Amino acid sequence: MMYVNEKIKNTIRVPQPEGRGAYIRLDQNENPDGLPKWLFDSVMEKVTPEFLSIYPEETLPTTKYAEMLGLKKENVTLTDGSTVGMGYVIKVFGEPHKDILCVTPSFAMYEVYAKMVGMNVKQLKYEDDFSYKIENTLDSINENTGIVVLVNPNMPVGNVYSREEIISIIEKARQINAVVIIDEAYYYFYNRTSVDLIKEYDNVFVLRTFSKMLSIPALRLGVIMSSSENIRCINNYKPHYTVNSIALLFAEAIVDNHDRLLFELKEQYLEGKKYIMDALAENGYETLPSEGCYVCIKPRYKTSREITDILKENNILILCGKDGLTGWLRLTIAHKKYMEIFMEILIRIDK
Amino acid sequence: MMYVNEKIKNTIRVPQPEGRGAYIRLDQNENPDGLPKWLFDSVMEKVTPEFLSIYPEETLPTTKYAEMLGLKKENVTLTDGSTVGMGYVIKVFGEPHKDILCVTPSFAMYEVYAKMVGMNVKQLKYEDDFSYKIENTLDSINENTGIVVLVNPNMPVGNVYSREEIISIIEKARQINAVVIIDEAYYYFYNRTSVDLIKEYDNVFVLRTFSKMLSIPALRLGVIMSSSENIRCINNYKPHYTVNSIALLFAEAIVDNHDRLLFELKEQYLEGKKYIMDALAENGYETLPSEGCYVCIKPRYKTSREITDILKENNILILCGKDGLTGWLRLTIAHKKYMEIFMEILIRIDK
Repeated sequence: MMYVNEKIKNTIRVPQPEGRGAYIRLDQNENPDGLPKWLFDSVMEKVTPEFLSIYPEETLPTTKYAEMLGLKKENVTLTDGSTVGMGYVIKVFGEPHKDILCVTPSFAMYEVYAKMVGMNVKQLKYEDDFSYKIENTLDSINENTGIVVLVNPNMPVGNVYSREEIISIIEKARQINAVVIIDEAYYYFYNRTSVDLIKEYDNVFVLRTFSKMLSIPALRLGVIMSSSENIRCINNYKPHYTVNSIALLFAEAIVDNHDRLLFELKEQYLEGKKYIMDALAENGYETLPSEGCYVCIKPRYKTSREITDILKENNILILCGKDGLTGWLRLTIAHKKYMEIFMEILIRIDK
Repeated sequence: MMYVNEKIKNTIRVPQPEGRGAYIRLDQNENPDGLPKWLFDSVMEKVTPEFLSIYPEETLPTTKYAEMLGLKKENVTLTDGSTVGMGYVIKVFGEPHKDILCVTPSFAMYEVYAKMVGMNVKQLKYEDDFSYKIENTLDSINENTGIVVLVNPNMPVGNVYSREEIISIIEKARQINAVVIIDEAYYYFYNRTSVDLIKEYDNVFVLRTFSKMLSIPALRLGVIMSSSENIRCINNYKPHYTVNSIALLFAEAIVDNHDRLLFELKEQYLEGKKYIMDALAENGYETLPSEGCYVCIKPRYKTSREITDILKENNILILCGKDGLTGWLRLTIAHKKYMEIFMEILIRIDK
């Protein structure tokens, strides 16, 4: 028998959905419209056959991104998606046989990567009302803890951790040399960051993505931020040439036009959010408080499966809750025009 | 002290060159002109802000690529560059403490990945005349062999392995359950493949890239081909959403237009190759026989360092040989117009 790493051979992976282009996509927390045309055009005019013939160069976009956040380029490394980035952190800093603490439900790949390096996954649960008590995490940190994951805001519930809570976790973790990953995939919807804490604590990694508010999931671009020594180790592991050159052009353009772009994207998002939250409340729908670009909705009469199926027939993709959220719907909050279409159908069918 | 995987912490990585866009790039085996405009335009017209707002979908391009080679989609997985792909194979199928057999000099990342998983790297040497005896590899396969790497054509020397030699390696490796990686990065310059052998032998992986003849290194696209069970294991390891959607569009277009595209690219390449090989011979330059898009050239009077430095001042990047090729120049063979510029300067300065 040929050798195969047993932890990988037996990993269970969930296939990703395909054929989504023909639908209004309110299932994966993307911005269905993408970037504004002015920014898109300013980047794409630089893409030529010759441009695509050159291996990617990361230094300039990495430096610009770091400077935007008051960091040095040595504190930042770009990854082909944040999902790849979290894998790097776990594969380099995850000690076999130690525990990784994750809140459940959350982003599934932390568990997948942790099992690949032979860590034990400790799933920490929400209260019955879907609030999360930080003591759950704090009390679970002990001598066998290797990594603590804080997705802030968490997904799909949308709860957040305060700065004091985050610092209390980091400090307790540091006492036993455990790593804290703060996943800020949904930072731009919440507007509070822990990035500055990487200057103070050498056991902290902050992850960001260009796939959510920044609207380019197709291009695969994520960011890992940490101490320069930690980033040096990640860069030792990271293959050269992983982030593609068009993603790197967009990274530069997004940094160069950050204020104008974020003003536009946030205005559009907030208009959609106000509309949908008001409409759901007015129509008697129970929702979970969320600081992310998604909201869990309790159907009133039909099951969540019935509603997602009918919505799909009407060309709209949303998700059915699972892992403790069975019975709930999960909706991506996007531009008001899409929220109106969703709401109109929901009211019509949920009776 | 925080845990860091020691093998990764102490890995030595070579920084990649940057700032290359302003030069004629004859150093990294790229096609400096990139893809023909007709193919480029046909793809880029599909790229919109909305297109970039959707997570990538690999099934269609993977299926088309597999069918082009007479394989099933289950035999193929796409990677964000072939460099990433070789890492997947080694991380999933590389048994710690076993040997990986590599010919030196060759592509450096095999050694980097092998050390990360704790394999022993056995470097197999060329003869003094830079011919390679396959017995070197065959005789080195023993009970402790885990992986045998055959880069065919090898880089930077450009030697090749015959089908009989490859089969003899595969069969001997199979007796002791060792894996054989056949890296066909330079397949299109050589036109002989081992892809069909994956149907017959379950210990074979064939790698391809879109960065060389296919001219899109900026987009990061590679291919791993093997048995469906081996590809299932690789896909267990591979994070979802690594290859970006523009690369996937190009993959489809390249398959859809394969004959026309390859006719154009090969014609251009062969014209350049004929010109440079004739010109080097006429001017008394010793070269190593190469079936790849690169040739090692012995300077006549100046040192290889002096020549690469002067070429750089003249806006041309080529490489100085190392690892047994010290004293040699390594030139990427490209369009005749670039070969003429190179040759004109070489003759002028090497005296």
